[in-house]
Amino acid sequence: MSAAVETKNSKNMTQVNIKPLADRVVVEPLPAEEKTKAGIIIPDTAKEKPQEGVVVAVGPGKKDEPMTVKVGDRVLYGKYAGTEIQIDGKEYLIMRESDIYAIV
Amino acid sequence: MSAAVETKNSKNMTQVNIKPLADRVVVEPLPAEEKTKAGIIIPDTAKEKPQEGVVVAVGPGKKDEPMTVKVGDRVLYGKYAGTEIQIDGKEYLIMRESDIYAIV
Amino acid sequence: MSAAVETKNSKNMTQVNIKPLADRVVVEPLPAEEKTKAGIIIPDTAKEKPQEGVVVAVGPGKKDEPMTVKVGDRVLYGKYAGTEIQIDGKEYLIMRESDIYAIV
Amino acid sequence: MSAAVETKNSKNMTQVNIKPLADRVVVEPLPAEEKTKAGIIIPDTAKEKPQEGVVVAVGPGKKDEPMTVKVGDRVLYGKYAGTEIQIDGKEYLIMRESDIYAIV
Amino acid sequence: MSAAVETKNSKNMTQVNIKPLADRVVVEPLPAEEKTKAGIIIPDTAKEKPQEGVVVAVGPGKKDEPMTVKVGDRVLYGKYAGTEIQIDGKEYLIMRESDIYAIV
Amino acid sequence: MSAAVETKNSKNMTQVNIKPLADRVVVEPLPAEEKTKAGIIIPDTAKEKPQEGVVVAVGPGKKDEPMTVKVGDRVLYGKYAGTEIQIDGKEYLIMRESDIYAIV
Amino acid sequence: MSAAVETKNSKNMTQVNIKPLADRVVVEPLPAEEKTKAGIIIPDTAKEKPQEGVVVAVGPGKKDEPMTVKVGDRVLYGKYAGTEIQIDGKEYLIMRESDIYAIV
Repeated sequence: MSAAVETKNSKNMTQVNIKPLADRVVVEPLPAEEKTKAGIIIPDTAKEKPQEGVVVAVGPGKKDEPMTVKVGDRVLYGKYAGTEIQIDGKEYLIMRESDIYAIV
Repeated sequence: MSAAVETKNSKNMTQVNIKPLADRVVVEPLPAEEKTKAGIIIPDTAKEKPQEGVVVAVGPGKKDEPMTVKVGDRVLYGKYAGTEIQIDGKEYLIMRESDIYAIV
Repeated sequence: MSAAVETKNSKNMTQVNIKPLADRVVVEPLPAEEKTKAGIIIPDTAKEKPQEGVVVAVGPGKKDEPMTVKVGDRVLYGKYAGTEIQIDGKEYLIMRESDIYAIV
Repeated sequence: MSAAVETKNSKNMTQVNIKPLADRVVVEPLPAEEKTKAGIIIPDTAKEKPQEGVVVAVGPGKKDEPMTVKVGDRVLYGKYAGTEIQIDGKEYLIMRESDIYAIV
Repeated sequence: MSAAVETKNSKNMTQVNIKPLADRVVVEPLPAEEKTKAGIIIPDTAKEKPQEGVVVAVGPGKKDEPMTVKVGDRVLYGKYAGTEIQIDGKEYLIMRESDIYAIV
Repeated sequence: MSAAVETKNSKNMTQVNIKPLADRVVVEPLPAEEKTKAGIIIPDTAKEKPQEGVVVAVGPGKKDEPMTVKVGDRVLYGKYAGTEIQIDGKEYLIMRESDIYAIV
Repeated sequence: MSAAVETKNSKNMTQVNIKPLADRVVVEPLPAEEKTKAGIIIPDTAKEKPQEGVVVAVGPGKKDEPMTVKVGDRVLYGKYAGTEIQIDGKEYLIMRESDIYAIV
């Protein structure tokens, strides 16, 4: 993920004022229709709920387990991962890093 | 969270005389209607029970695991987190720190 | 909890001849009507079973985990915590320290 | 528990030839009617099955966890704790030490 | 358990050619009617399946946990412990040492 | 698995732009009909869903547990292992390494 | 298990080209009718599915836990242990070493 890409992400990204605890991560879900750079399309059976998003906040990690993802990463996560929260009227998911499958 | 904010919080905050054990935290829930500084609005489906509150007492933490939240922090927590208790006629929640998602 | 308070507690407290094992604690439940110094009132839905009591005996703790509560402490505990036992015709609860939420 | 008490217990106690493994303990249940020195009476709802007994054999403990109870101790244990065994026609319970609440 | 006793046991014991893995033990169940030296009688409710047997083979133990029982020991074990196997037409049970309550 | 084989695999393998987290692995399933070099045929009862695939991306492993499989390995995995994802219109599975039985 | 025996086993044993991961083992089940050298007969209730087999491939073991069984060992394993796989049209089971009870 190049700096250029992160800059591009940053343009669209709401600055969120939230500090996740432990190994939690706040993710801004991407609309199911949107294609990633890597060309990932959410399979039909999963269309109604996005499984791809952009990390907007990252916790400090748990004891002796530093975090892998960072703000700006596009990530794939489990269909039922996380809890929905709203910040400034926009919907986000807060989940544990272990709910994230991969950076894409 | 600046000192000014904590002072503002302190004005509204009941001084509670309770010492939570281990990794427990006492939280004063905010009314569901109230908006946080960060502009968080509880999503519609969660309106009937607040998910945001202010920490009013913090336990010493579990062995080798110091606490992250402190008195005065505004926190997001799981909809079903904690046990309701009343102190001086006011309702609080006592929960484990792991039930807290983030500081907002 | 001042020494004076503990003396007052001691006056009312049955001397119980019991040695809890490990991290167990014997608690004398307070009647649900009684208010604590800290003014805690058990919420209506919990009235039929007290959730506040006074510690009357404390185990030695588990390996590497010393106990936090001590005899004379007023404690809040889970509504379904512990097992009822009778000593000299009086009812007590024996529970693990982890069932105790806070000292009040 | 004084030496005199243990001697008194020893008089009534069957010498049992059994070596419990690990953290197991063999307990001779006391009849539900019998009162302990400490005056404990089994609550009404538990009358049909004794919850108090005398330890007659103790295992060596698990790795790094020495045993607390010893032969001759009067103990309180969970209503459904242990497995019934017969030695010389007399009924005993074999249970883990963690099933024992307290020494009385 | 004296050497003499083990010799007596050895007379009746089939030499079994089996190497249990980890913490497993092969036990030759004793008929439910048979009384042990220690006079243990299986309680009526357990008559149809023996709970007492003689150890005929012992595994090397799990990492850092040496075995306690040895070949020739008479043991008490849980009513539903182990898996039945046949060696030379005779029925045995293979179980974990943790399924064994005591040496009798 | 020789370098030649890996080269051959590489020819057919989509270059996938995905970084699995922790101990996760992205696998391109082989059609159930296809035979492996080792001649493995998926048993009839499992025909409808392939259990064999080629590893196309490998995570960094969990703390202190390096990964065993590498890109290009043909692997056997549990029938219900992993989550389906699409990359560039092609279907893959993302699973934990522990869901993989063997390299074939 | 002498070298001679292993040679005899090797004659009948398919050379299998499979590398089990972690603590997994590939076992070639023996027909239920076949008697082992040690004379083990599968009990009647287990006749329809063999519980005895020959190890044909062994994984490297898990971290700090070397494997005990080796290729050529005749083993007893749980009736429902493992997953069926076919290699060159022959059926095998792939299971964890902990599913193996004993070497016979």
